[in-house]
Amino acid sequence: MTQQRGTQSLQFDEAPYIISSSSIVGQKEGDGPYGSQFDQIEPDPYFGQNTWEEAESQLQLKTAMLALEKEQLSLADIRYIFAGDLLGQNIATSFGLVDMNLPLFGLFGACSTIAEALILGSMCVSGGYADRVLCLASSHFGSAEKQFRFPLEYGNQRPLSASWTVTGSGAFVLSSSCVGSHHAQLRITGVTPGKIVDYGFKDSLNMGAAMAPAAAHTISQNFKDFDRTPADYDRIVTGDLGQIGQEILLKLLLEQGYDISAQHMDCGIEIFDPETQDTHAGGSGCGCSASLLSAHLLKQLRDGKWNRILFVPTGALMSTISFNEGQTVPGIAHGVVIERR
Amino acid sequence: MTQQRGTQSLQFDEAPYIISSSSIVGQKEGDGPYGSQFDQIEPDPYFGQNTWEEAESQLQLKTAMLALEKEQLSLADIRYIFAGDLLGQNIATSFGLVDMNLPLFGLFGACSTIAEALILGSMCVSGGYADRVLCLASSHFGSAEKQFRFPLEYGNQRPLSASWTVTGSGAFVLSSSCVGSHHAQLRITGVTPGKIVDYGFKDSLNMGAAMAPAAAHTISQNFKDFDRTPADYDRIVTGDLGQIGQEILLKLLLEQGYDISAQHMDCGIEIFDPETQDTHAGGSGCGCSASLLSAHLLKQLRDGKWNRILFVPTGALMSTISFNEGQTVPGIAHGVVIERR
Repeated sequence: MTQQRGTQSLQFDEAPYIISSSSIVGQKEGDGPYGSQFDQIEPDPYFGQNTWEEAESQLQLKTAMLALEKEQLSLADIRYIFAGDLLGQNIATSFGLVDMNLPLFGLFGACSTIAEALILGSMCVSGGYADRVLCLASSHFGSAEKQFRFPLEYGNQRPLSASWTVTGSGAFVLSSSCVGSHHAQLRITGVTPGKIVDYGFKDSLNMGAAMAPAAAHTISQNFKDFDRTPADYDRIVTGDLGQIGQEILLKLLLEQGYDISAQHMDCGIEIFDPETQDTHAGGSGCGCSASLLSAHLLKQLRDGKWNRILFVPTGALMSTISFNEGQTVPGIAHGVVIERR
Repeated sequence: MTQQRGTQSLQFDEAPYIISSSSIVGQKEGDGPYGSQFDQIEPDPYFGQNTWEEAESQLQLKTAMLALEKEQLSLADIRYIFAGDLLGQNIATSFGLVDMNLPLFGLFGACSTIAEALILGSMCVSGGYADRVLCLASSHFGSAEKQFRFPLEYGNQRPLSASWTVTGSGAFVLSSSCVGSHHAQLRITGVTPGKIVDYGFKDSLNMGAAMAPAAAHTISQNFKDFDRTPADYDRIVTGDLGQIGQEILLKLLLEQGYDISAQHMDCGIEIFDPETQDTHAGGSGCGCSASLLSAHLLKQLRDGKWNRILFVPTGALMSTISFNEGQTVPGIAHGVVIERR
């Protein structure tokens, strides 16, 4: 019982190792500032398939298999998969991973899903329930626009507060030991699972504002539960708040006495170049933070530029039905502490 | 590492206790053979709300709070919630549980979701990550028909292979100790998380056939991993296979040398009276197996009529989009071993 920290967090006595990870993104993400760091850039938005949904399934499968291949792991080395996506009834995951023939825990945390997967995967490995698990999440611009907004063929105008769903996936192999890995030792040392936070925002095209309160809650709770300050982290990385959400996040935390302006970084702001890529509020989607975690954040840790980060992807818990029925857009944010050690 | 059994299962050294549970259902379920055993029957299908989705959210919240009240637990006694539903982006759960203000793991396993929740909740409690967690799932006839089939107002004919989505929810409090509980000691002693199994079925109105292969796989894997035979269980209880799915399940297992005809029971077949309730293949939905587990199955264990059951809810991993795009309907089934001891 010593692993429980404060009211929400866990500290792992046997901190799981991230022994492999992979990222695959679309062409637009490949053309962005982090293009050279992703493992693969796929120029065909359909990934060789016939529909956007099949494309996302293929993206997820390829990313999963790449994470195994990079460390010469086989399917038999993985005991459980923790995975999800943004589509109704998780169809990108179900159809993408069926042929892996491994037990699957389907997850839904909107754009926070990769953190939910890493938290549950860490609990599983640290608890001795599996020697190795695979955690992954994806999003695809085509399938997300079709589901949440307008068919691409419609060519509608997008408000400046809207974000651009990232075509991308990130996959991570967590292990109870790091034997055989050439990586510097990256470990998930603690987690802060998040609560649903609803400030009553109703604009589904300004999701950064809707999600910022949840991020603020999880980050401040992490500080309290672990008795830490912002300076204890080299970076505090949110998922896809965008410019508007970032402003709100910094303000909300400042009101609680925490200034994270020196540490804060948002994957949605980072992944595209706003000057040249016309992506408005920034990138979004499960694949945004998942792909950037593998391609860039873990690399900075591995290279010794950072030693400890708090990774806090954020999700907007809505559907087109809830939105059309006049519901608010509540947010959730799950926190993962990743350390080089 | 001693908790891993075989290739897929876990046996809990510190088996979590089910210290409380609750079930709330709609009027049709209340009129069925198990009507007297549910905790509450709600005659208003809207549960006092304005939409089917809000109704399901309210159903889930009421069921969750009832599980706490029955054992005089407060929200502060619960560390994490594991929950899900059938609706796209899990909106019944997100909007239903927001005011509980507890960390939430959103899950999607279609109609197998309550088993996924019980498995992850058990891992969490047994691993010392929480003293008590809440696991729940729901479905609602109105919200499910609207999403997956036709608006109720349309009054379409239903094929005989179609099932009737149960309006119901079941909630379960898992605890590392049973101090203060008046119940006989019910414990989750083992689990078999399931794989996606796709036999290529394409009829979304015959989901029992689509899910039976997944149930067969999880049940036979459970026998192998725990070195058990059907006779080691007093009942082997699937979620919502219905009559057609049951036939296929028994046949598939017989081909593998397992005759479970004496032990098998299906919540979907049980929950309605086919003679008088015109529900065709039987009940379905996350709420079918979840509500019957609380109302009937746990009661049989508590009363000493049974000592050990294998609870195996089944899910059809599809959406209207995947179906309309010509995809198959893969199934998944998660197994939970519940014992009185």
